[in-house]
Amino acid sequence: MAPRPAATLTDTQRRDWLRLLRTDNVGPATFRQLLTRFGSADAALDALPGLLRRTAKPLRIPTQSEAEDEIAGLSRYGARLVAGGEPDYPPLLAYIPAAPPLVTMAGGQNLDWLRTVAIVGARNASAAGIKMTRLLAGDLGERGYTVVSGLARGIDTAAHRATLTTGTIAVLAGGFDKIYPDENIPLAHDILDNGGCLLTEMPLGWEPRARDFPRRNRLVSGLSLGVVVVEAAKRSGSLITARLALEQNRDVFAVPGSPLDPRAEGGNTLIQQGAKLITGAADIVETLGSADPSRNALFDRDWEPDLLPDTPPPSEDDRSRLLSSLSATPIDVDELVRQSGLPASAMQMLLLELDLAGQIEWSSGQLVALKYS
Amino acid sequence: MAPRPAATLTDTQRRDWLRLLRTDNVGPATFRQLLTRFGSADAALDALPGLLRRTAKPLRIPTQSEAEDEIAGLSRYGARLVAGGEPDYPPLLAYIPAAPPLVTMAGGQNLDWLRTVAIVGARNASAAGIKMTRLLAGDLGERGYTVVSGLARGIDTAAHRATLTTGTIAVLAGGFDKIYPDENIPLAHDILDNGGCLLTEMPLGWEPRARDFPRRNRLVSGLSLGVVVVEAAKRSGSLITARLALEQNRDVFAVPGSPLDPRAEGGNTLIQQGAKLITGAADIVETLGSADPSRNALFDRDWEPDLLPDTPPPSEDDRSRLLSSLSATPIDVDELVRQSGLPASAMQMLLLELDLAGQIEWSSGQLVALKYS
Repeated sequence: MAPRPAATLTDTQRRDWLRLLRTDNVGPATFRQLLTRFGSADAALDALPGLLRRTAKPLRIPTQSEAEDEIAGLSRYGARLVAGGEPDYPPLLAYIPAAPPLVTMAGGQNLDWLRTVAIVGARNASAAGIKMTRLLAGDLGERGYTVVSGLARGIDTAAHRATLTTGTIAVLAGGFDKIYPDENIPLAHDILDNGGCLLTEMPLGWEPRARDFPRRNRLVSGLSLGVVVVEAAKRSGSLITARLALEQNRDVFAVPGSPLDPRAEGGNTLIQQGAKLITGAADIVETLGSADPSRNALFDRDWEPDLLPDTPPPSEDDRSRLLSSLSATPIDVDELVRQSGLPASAMQMLLLELDLAGQIEWSSGQLVALKYS
Repeated sequence: MAPRPAATLTDTQRRDWLRLLRTDNVGPATFRQLLTRFGSADAALDALPGLLRRTAKPLRIPTQSEAEDEIAGLSRYGARLVAGGEPDYPPLLAYIPAAPPLVTMAGGQNLDWLRTVAIVGARNASAAGIKMTRLLAGDLGERGYTVVSGLARGIDTAAHRATLTTGTIAVLAGGFDKIYPDENIPLAHDILDNGGCLLTEMPLGWEPRARDFPRRNRLVSGLSLGVVVVEAAKRSGSLITARLALEQNRDVFAVPGSPLDPRAEGGNTLIQQGAKLITGAADIVETLGSADPSRNALFDRDWEPDLLPDTPPPSEDDRSRLLSSLSATPIDVDELVRQSGLPASAMQMLLLELDLAGQIEWSSGQLVALKYS
């Protein structure tokens, strides 16, 4: 794929992108559909009220001044909003499904964003796990890799600390002003002071909730060529990160441990499922040396909106036909088009409406299901 | 492959097999070639002096009374000599390359010899390694598997101890009367008292030397559907057993451990090379449930000697032609036949002579090289 000239948004465009992205029910995938459908965030914002005519609950769209306040607030923290397609946007992140249209970033201008390894693991890590992380992260840093993690206690903290001087990226689960946990606020400052980067997709002022951590984890893996799991219990956040990494076509590495140690259970299980067993940085570098994220079959994102032909709005009849085809079982959109007999353009419009109305949910980019709440 | 009626040797045949097998330079492979060539051990013993005419060093052939003494000595220990093809011969062992023509066995009459797992590992095992072995072996025993090991200190001892009542097989590196290490003589007695088995291919009175342990290890794996490595340093005997198991087409399992623990290095490396990471008996049973040793491509042994046509003895010229074709690099016998232009029957005879003269060595059953000593 040929590199394309990176564009930069104007201040007005950036404000409109932010308003559209911060609108209720507009996640990364919906954002991209709206941009594709209407050609610009500005046009999509104008069209939203019409699109929502038929949905029960009115959506809250942030005002211009609210968006400007967030941008000004970030600026006071030394942070900036970077849009997908802009030169500063983390290159590997653009490859993931539902890449965030905007990320908040501070620092990191001189990091190597292409040679990145995530290290994740238990918050209640053992002394051996911390030591292993320190050795591994330190060695990766010395070999020129930037280390990505989630600023959590335990393994994450050790990974960042060991790579302060060689380059580290911390991804936050909440707003830029809501560093979690509190005890790692000094670490966040150390990261910035050493040229590292703090990054989040969440709004300023957002307190991280439990469900924001898996969402954050997809950025941790999405920023990285591969993810190393150091210590992880069964059903831990680190295993979610590993699964997301596989969905993003990134390598998954795991440090083995004794079956008698419950903190080794996650890593050992990952290895049984196909993750690479690693005992040091050399094992990782050997694999990643030939890694090429553009092999990623999922990379079909295009930030230049392709305008759809102006189709007549779908009828109520189309709408009920689609709703009766949907269930809690995720189904492929192409299959839905075949089964419902609706034209693809009408289908896309209806799904967008249902998405904005919070009635459906997407998984793996192409699968759609009714949302039961 | 259809089962064949098991034959039993007469006392005289058993004595002759023992004399032939205990002759200098007659290993399992040469034994089989001699039996194939001459039709019986008796006939091979008669032919040996003629075969050795042209070799420098005369070979020591045990006398009839020496062989009878060994048999009587074994009998005093409650042990018996079992020949390949006899009903008592361990069935899985018959499948390995260069299976021992005779093994010394005591006990084990009621063991399940078809559902067997070897557990091997470090002599200087950690407390965690011992505990892991105890759990693993005990669980395998309860699931109906017989556990095989080498009666060494550490992991081996723990594996035998945990399976005394469910069934255990100890393979010795020396003679039946030379249990090693001394401290495990009581364990050997406990094994026999509980219906377990002691097994060796070495002569009565043989003190085990360093090189006898790898040779013993091929029986440990050869008796088993799969081998589990619990704790093993780099370049340890357990890794030799794992390699032999692969050559014998048996499964290799390894218990993972922290990369910070040198005793985990062997197991972790095995997993990186393709061994299955296991955390408990369930992982092993899942794999072995479908194991079928007759899938083994190496199984082409046939204990009914196929008599070769009586060919004229090879000439001195043939002999020097063959010697000039051989080098320290192992070469396939078929390739040798093609290159030297010798008839296959003459080639076989010459290789047998050179083998008995200690001038060549075999590897992987089909590869032959000059021996430099």
